[in-house]
Amino acid sequence: MFDISKLKSIVGEDWVVTDRQQMESYLIDETYTGLIMTPADNVVVVKPANAQEISQVMRLANEEGFPVYPRGGGTGVCAGAIPTRDGVVLSMERLDKVEEIDKENLMAVVQAGVTLSQLLQSVESAELLFPPHPGDEGAQVGGLIACNAGGTRAVKYGVVRNYVKGLEVLLPTGEIVTMGGKLLKNNTGLDLMQLIIDSEGILGIITKAILRLYPKFAGPATLVISFDDRHAAMRSVPKILQSGVIPMAVEYVDHDLMEATASYLGTTWPATKGVAHLIIIVTGTNEDDVYEQCEKISEICEKNGSVDTLMAESREEQAHILHVRSETSMTYKARTAEILDVTVPPAAIGDLMDEIDRLGAEYDTKIPMVAHAGDGNFHPHLMLELKERGVEKEVKRRIYARAVEMGGVISGEHGIGKTKLQELEMCLDAKSLDLMRGLKHLFDPNNVLSPDSAIK
Amino acid sequence: MFDISKLKSIVGEDWVVTDRQQMESYLIDETYTGLIMTPADNVVVVKPANAQEISQVMRLANEEGFPVYPRGGGTGVCAGAIPTRDGVVLSMERLDKVEEIDKENLMAVVQAGVTLSQLLQSVESAELLFPPHPGDEGAQVGGLIACNAGGTRAVKYGVVRNYVKGLEVLLPTGEIVTMGGKLLKNNTGLDLMQLIIDSEGILGIITKAILRLYPKFAGPATLVISFDDRHAAMRSVPKILQSGVIPMAVEYVDHDLMEATASYLGTTWPATKGVAHLIIIVTGTNEDDVYEQCEKISEICEKNGSVDTLMAESREEQAHILHVRSETSMTYKARTAEILDVTVPPAAIGDLMDEIDRLGAEYDTKIPMVAHAGDGNFHPHLMLELKERGVEKEVKRRIYARAVEMGGVISGEHGIGKTKLQELEMCLDAKSLDLMRGLKHLFDPNNVLSPDSAIK
Repeated sequence: MFDISKLKSIVGEDWVVTDRQQMESYLIDETYTGLIMTPADNVVVVKPANAQEISQVMRLANEEGFPVYPRGGGTGVCAGAIPTRDGVVLSMERLDKVEEIDKENLMAVVQAGVTLSQLLQSVESAELLFPPHPGDEGAQVGGLIACNAGGTRAVKYGVVRNYVKGLEVLLPTGEIVTMGGKLLKNNTGLDLMQLIIDSEGILGIITKAILRLYPKFAGPATLVISFDDRHAAMRSVPKILQSGVIPMAVEYVDHDLMEATASYLGTTWPATKGVAHLIIIVTGTNEDDVYEQCEKISEICEKNGSVDTLMAESREEQAHILHVRSETSMTYKARTAEILDVTVPPAAIGDLMDEIDRLGAEYDTKIPMVAHAGDGNFHPHLMLELKERGVEKEVKRRIYARAVEMGGVISGEHGIGKTKLQELEMCLDAKSLDLMRGLKHLFDPNNVLSPDSAIK
Repeated sequence: MFDISKLKSIVGEDWVVTDRQQMESYLIDETYTGLIMTPADNVVVVKPANAQEISQVMRLANEEGFPVYPRGGGTGVCAGAIPTRDGVVLSMERLDKVEEIDKENLMAVVQAGVTLSQLLQSVESAELLFPPHPGDEGAQVGGLIACNAGGTRAVKYGVVRNYVKGLEVLLPTGEIVTMGGKLLKNNTGLDLMQLIIDSEGILGIITKAILRLYPKFAGPATLVISFDDRHAAMRSVPKILQSGVIPMAVEYVDHDLMEATASYLGTTWPATKGVAHLIIIVTGTNEDDVYEQCEKISEICEKNGSVDTLMAESREEQAHILHVRSETSMTYKARTAEILDVTVPPAAIGDLMDEIDRLGAEYDTKIPMVAHAGDGNFHPHLMLELKERGVEKEVKRRIYARAVEMGGVISGEHGIGKTKLQELEMCLDAKSLDLMRGLKHLFDPNNVLSPDSAIK
């Protein structure tokens, strides 16, 4: 189908993998068990050194008509990186340089294959802060941007989109284009950069990014606040936000899930009271400010029925709490068909979670949930047993339908990839879908880049 | 060219203006003297009541092939709203309802013709805050979004883009599409909403918006800090931002310009020392926090050579300072050919301003400047005398060329409109321009919406 010798002449023989066993880890990502897709039989993994080599690969792909699947850290959960047609997996792993931490402009210039872990370390060494923390630190910068990653810390500073100020993008047709720069304002023509963000690797391959950094704020301090019922916890969230305190993160977790996760990890969950917790992370201009914000949050929650507040100030305690929180999806992993990613207006979360509880009862299943409560984004876990009983899709569609009725969408941060093709129409009208397909065709006329995604 | 009776049957006879004298104010905007364009001879002003009527107008425009120029508050400075071809001016003034201030979700739902002044009042009545303040309060919400307005308060909370969470958009082909919602996260397909923001009315007509609100923060307090030289002022800005204090606004102004503006307004400028000022607006979680931030800023500036600090806490004093600041462009208005809008990496502003001073000396002219110093966005004023001497374009292009060399762009907040067509290529490559034209064609295949803008 395509000439491997040409690929070798572009990137060098050492950087083309044709042996199936050696490429196993490049054929999958973190897509949930119930949705996993089979990679195609004839796949070649190519590891270019720079944008110029990628450009040559893309030009070849257009000439010879083979699909290219760009691949970052492989931490996506929607099968976006899985090569489901015979073609090339383009691994970004060699574009791994943090080119600059610019303290004067508070910007980082990083290649797309830099991992979140690497970025955080470089920024930390410069005594600055990159606020978002969307889960897996093995994720690469290109993927974080292509998927507009969210995560727990979007309440105060927003999702990854807010941090992206400049991009170098390799277009499907082979051109290398720069967009934006170390710029905080830019109204120069239509904003192609905003279109590339969250395009899930179908409009272009991000090769470099300029990211906004912040000074280190005082804190963080982490509160775990316990409630005897979920609604009391959920009711407290808008009250906190309205009070003028904007925490960095406001997470809702079920007590049972945290106990189970801690036990799975061989450790303990520090909050022993209540059935529902808010995990709230606070930063501020100085220690007093952080402390006063914590006091205020604690008072508001007490007025709204909290039964206990635990404040973690040491790095270790906080890390422990966040570690348990970040591993919740592992607890049930073997038994989970799919983790949903619905987003609704923030004040509607509590009601939708109750409806999902009732739906769980109706289908005789437990649907564990964690919520980015400040953002209206939450993750119901659908168990494999539902799939085995042939009702998983039905339950999912009922949850999606209610979310959409409430003014929500089916994905807040995970994206669409190849796993939500059928459901996309539940929250997008035909004309919008048409325009999206038109955009795909405009950027990628021969449909060579991730050709089997939802929008093609 | 087109059938006025059909327009009347869509919006009603009372809402179609054909008398030239009655439409004078609809034919111009705030475009600078040196760039002003002549409106076409055969123009009809249409004032639809709602999106459905606009849809019918757009369908008619496609059938009959006449241009439509959407018009908000007419406060743009790039001739975007000036009908330079025979056609229809579509005034959004009747879409003037603040539909909802949603305190639980901290969102406002407003029609596109709502003015900034109206929005600010509604939000204030609900004891909430819409942080941006991009100049003229007669601007309408649709225009603020279509132009991704910036203004002085972008340092802490960003430009208007950051506040837009949902849109109702009337496509050039007549379809009404909703994008986003009361949502803080949304990764559901390609982000058409982000493309409409800053599209300057060429991809669609915004008819309704959902905007994120904030609780009222403590403050604001306003500092006017005086320096004996510009570089000392400019050097202080990154130091302030690095310290962990992020003011709402950091404005640089020349002392002379402020004196002249105050005198033009028949009042006085309170800061008497120094040749250069930073005007800094601070908000915080409580009064102590605001005060401590002010102290910190003041100390940092003293270390960097400030000679005086004036702190305004009362509403009146602050309003006075901001009023004088906002009227700077009026001082020289009659003598100004054009106010530029270059944006560079924030730390490069001081150097570029110095170069512009030298350029002024070379061309024997004064080039007054105000700068959103925290954003890297600033406004050199080119005087009419340069145009009269036939060198204005040359001076402008030299400034643009240096800005682009420094990694900047020719517009940070004013946009491109019809006045920067020739210069757009100075900061965009051919492929990006091609893609932008492709986007225009995708959304508006018959080129009926603002058909003579830079991108067509």
